[in-house]
Amino acid sequence: MKAFEHLSQQEKNKLKQELNNRYESFQAQHLSLNMTRGVPSPEQLDLSMELLTCVNENHYRAQNGTDCRNYGGIDGIPEAKSLFADYMEVSTDEIIVAGNSSLNLMYDTFMRAMIKGVMKDEIPWFQQNKIKFICPSPGYDRHFSICEYLNIEMITVEMTDDGLDMDEIETLVANDDCIKGIWCVPKYSNPTGVTYTDEVVERLASMKTKANDFRIFWDNAYAVHHLTDTPAQLMPILDACKRSGNPDRVYMFGSTAKITFAGAGVAVLASSENNINWLRNQMIFQTIGPDKTNQLRHVTFFKNLDGIHQLMKQHARLIKPKFDAVQNTLEKELGQKGVAQWTNPKGGYFVSINTPDGCAQNVCEMAKKAGVMLTPAGATYPYKKDPRDRNIRIAPSFPSSADIHKAMELLSICIQLIAIDK
Amino acid sequence: MKAFEHLSQQEKNKLKQELNNRYESFQAQHLSLNMTRGVPSPEQLDLSMELLTCVNENHYRAQNGTDCRNYGGIDGIPEAKSLFADYMEVSTDEIIVAGNSSLNLMYDTFMRAMIKGVMKDEIPWFQQNKIKFICPSPGYDRHFSICEYLNIEMITVEMTDDGLDMDEIETLVANDDCIKGIWCVPKYSNPTGVTYTDEVVERLASMKTKANDFRIFWDNAYAVHHLTDTPAQLMPILDACKRSGNPDRVYMFGSTAKITFAGAGVAVLASSENNINWLRNQMIFQTIGPDKTNQLRHVTFFKNLDGIHQLMKQHARLIKPKFDAVQNTLEKELGQKGVAQWTNPKGGYFVSINTPDGCAQNVCEMAKKAGVMLTPAGATYPYKKDPRDRNIRIAPSFPSSADIHKAMELLSICIQLIAIDK
Repeated sequence: MKAFEHLSQQEKNKLKQELNNRYESFQAQHLSLNMTRGVPSPEQLDLSMELLTCVNENHYRAQNGTDCRNYGGIDGIPEAKSLFADYMEVSTDEIIVAGNSSLNLMYDTFMRAMIKGVMKDEIPWFQQNKIKFICPSPGYDRHFSICEYLNIEMITVEMTDDGLDMDEIETLVANDDCIKGIWCVPKYSNPTGVTYTDEVVERLASMKTKANDFRIFWDNAYAVHHLTDTPAQLMPILDACKRSGNPDRVYMFGSTAKITFAGAGVAVLASSENNINWLRNQMIFQTIGPDKTNQLRHVTFFKNLDGIHQLMKQHARLIKPKFDAVQNTLEKELGQKGVAQWTNPKGGYFVSINTPDGCAQNVCEMAKKAGVMLTPAGATYPYKKDPRDRNIRIAPSFPSSADIHKAMELLSICIQLIAIDK
Repeated sequence: MKAFEHLSQQEKNKLKQELNNRYESFQAQHLSLNMTRGVPSPEQLDLSMELLTCVNENHYRAQNGTDCRNYGGIDGIPEAKSLFADYMEVSTDEIIVAGNSSLNLMYDTFMRAMIKGVMKDEIPWFQQNKIKFICPSPGYDRHFSICEYLNIEMITVEMTDDGLDMDEIETLVANDDCIKGIWCVPKYSNPTGVTYTDEVVERLASMKTKANDFRIFWDNAYAVHHLTDTPAQLMPILDACKRSGNPDRVYMFGSTAKITFAGAGVAVLASSENNINWLRNQMIFQTIGPDKTNQLRHVTFFKNLDGIHQLMKQHARLIKPKFDAVQNTLEKELGQKGVAQWTNPKGGYFVSINTPDGCAQNVCEMAKKAGVMLTPAGATYPYKKDPRDRNIRIAPSFPSSADIHKAMELLSICIQLIAIDK
């Protein structure tokens, strides 16, 4: 297959005609395919059905005798803290096990920082002149939305193959005390799939920040969400922070949303004991405690960390063929043509495609007109603005392989039709 | 029985000796009784055991087909909105069904008011010079804690037999635009048990407030928690607010914490459609959605509002004898003596006792030394300071009737021993 740049005008015209014909035949199919949602499929949810009934009239107490039906316990039942401490690679003094939403934990952590600051004697963020956050991009739209909601200025830093451009980030944080933090999805990143190298983790942990109250928001959403038998290894950042003398720098988040039930899982926040105490002492103003029955369900169902890993292997068996369908179709349709690059992630939930500059928005609109919904172009960048208008996020977990094949074929046609005139 | 004020010194000395003897024999029993916690007993929790397994592999979809295991639905599944709209006496456009904690909903509503204000074009509370809240007292300590946490100045207004001293409240809110709201537990109030009269509700809804962004936080925690067959009637305040031209004035909260499981219930927020839209449009920054499986559990278990009422009758059968034990023991020990007044609530979770001024703290300490934990004196007032040091809150739902009898006997002894010297 010839790269586009080497096509003659005649060849281009012929190709355009072919592509237009194919596009029209797609339109005639009246498809309605949704590739926007990074959500588990029903088959994946079926893997955890035991969860629904494993807490019952014979089993509703925690190991220490706590009646999980009743009030109490601000930071989780002990066995849940123990299991998720293993999961997050921290100690049980460094974790809070909460409700069903890690996004809610992140939001709450921001709200507290706004109102109370991040530590005793630090000034609440809302009382400071201006707050800025570093947003490696493409990234997770809901991270960026929290910043936008709170009028926190976002600084876009392009993701690299290593995850982060640490030179740029170190320079930024060293010189601007308005920069209070950075968003990170360090493993199988949303959407690029990259896992941070040890060097990146070390540099994040040790870099000099002009702001004393600088915090890393470490959303380790895909910690065990491998697609291959050779899982990516991520250096534990809390340990790195401790080694560097910055033990309180990082808030880590995780959840079972994409392990058990997306809407009815358990979310956790891990950090230094200092930070956990600071947060827990404020949480008592917020709630009497999380849903302990759901925590008990999860511990009963998983048994231990190995139980989580075994379950994730079953997930991988279900979704790997879907990721393969993306790769195969894109390779077949676009391989060697030089009109797009895409990631081939070893885990996580997304494939990230870069079109030529200035094409992504048109591609998404064109695909939509033929019945394929893609995540809106720009959504993976702060303020929903992709400066180069090139990134498209593909979420293959929910649709069937056949639908993914169709959607990727159409997407490839759209990319070529938009790119060919550039 | 003679009132204390008519006792001769000799009679007093004799009584003191008797009371001291009884106190010492209590001490010798090495009791460990906890009367502090307004929590359901295990027998009450047992009433809802079907809840744990009624959502299962055969039943996990909402009526509209929504897979409750997966992501989505910011404000609750439709059938939960419908049921709890009935419960809160509002329409389905006027309710948000959320997670397990109504306290968390109240906290979130404050946090949003702090950061964003209560409505478009209103100034965020943290940007205003000073914020004050009216706190009818004795009241619920966790309401007051939220204000204290947020540096909101609390204005104590003593509760009356009608619930609220509306003359005082109307004067306060008419003249001070720093007063942004009032805390209310309008039915079977915590701890006095009073239910607001129609007049109180009407005046709250219609009073002139100097602040445009004034809000009533209406914590209707005990809406259906009757102890008798003649339930108290509470005028629906949202309707009253609409009639008065103040439709957006009230946020109403409720939960099933004391209907099903205290730690694993469903919480709701009801308000005008305007307010609900304002809040929901911000909640999308906070979470992808509440635990829908638990909402489905509740709807499946209750079926309808009548199901809730039937369940509450079973609760009443379990806790009424405990409330009777409080009344009978207090009457037997303290009746006619003029050393204490106490409430005889027709619903809710508490009995409120007033000792002579300046005694409550000493009474609680003395009871503690004999093994009976009471809610710390002062806890029912802002800043944990009861200006007259007289209010003691009794929570009879959890302990057995026998334990309650013992605890109330000891409490009566302590009250007399402390009061006799005053």
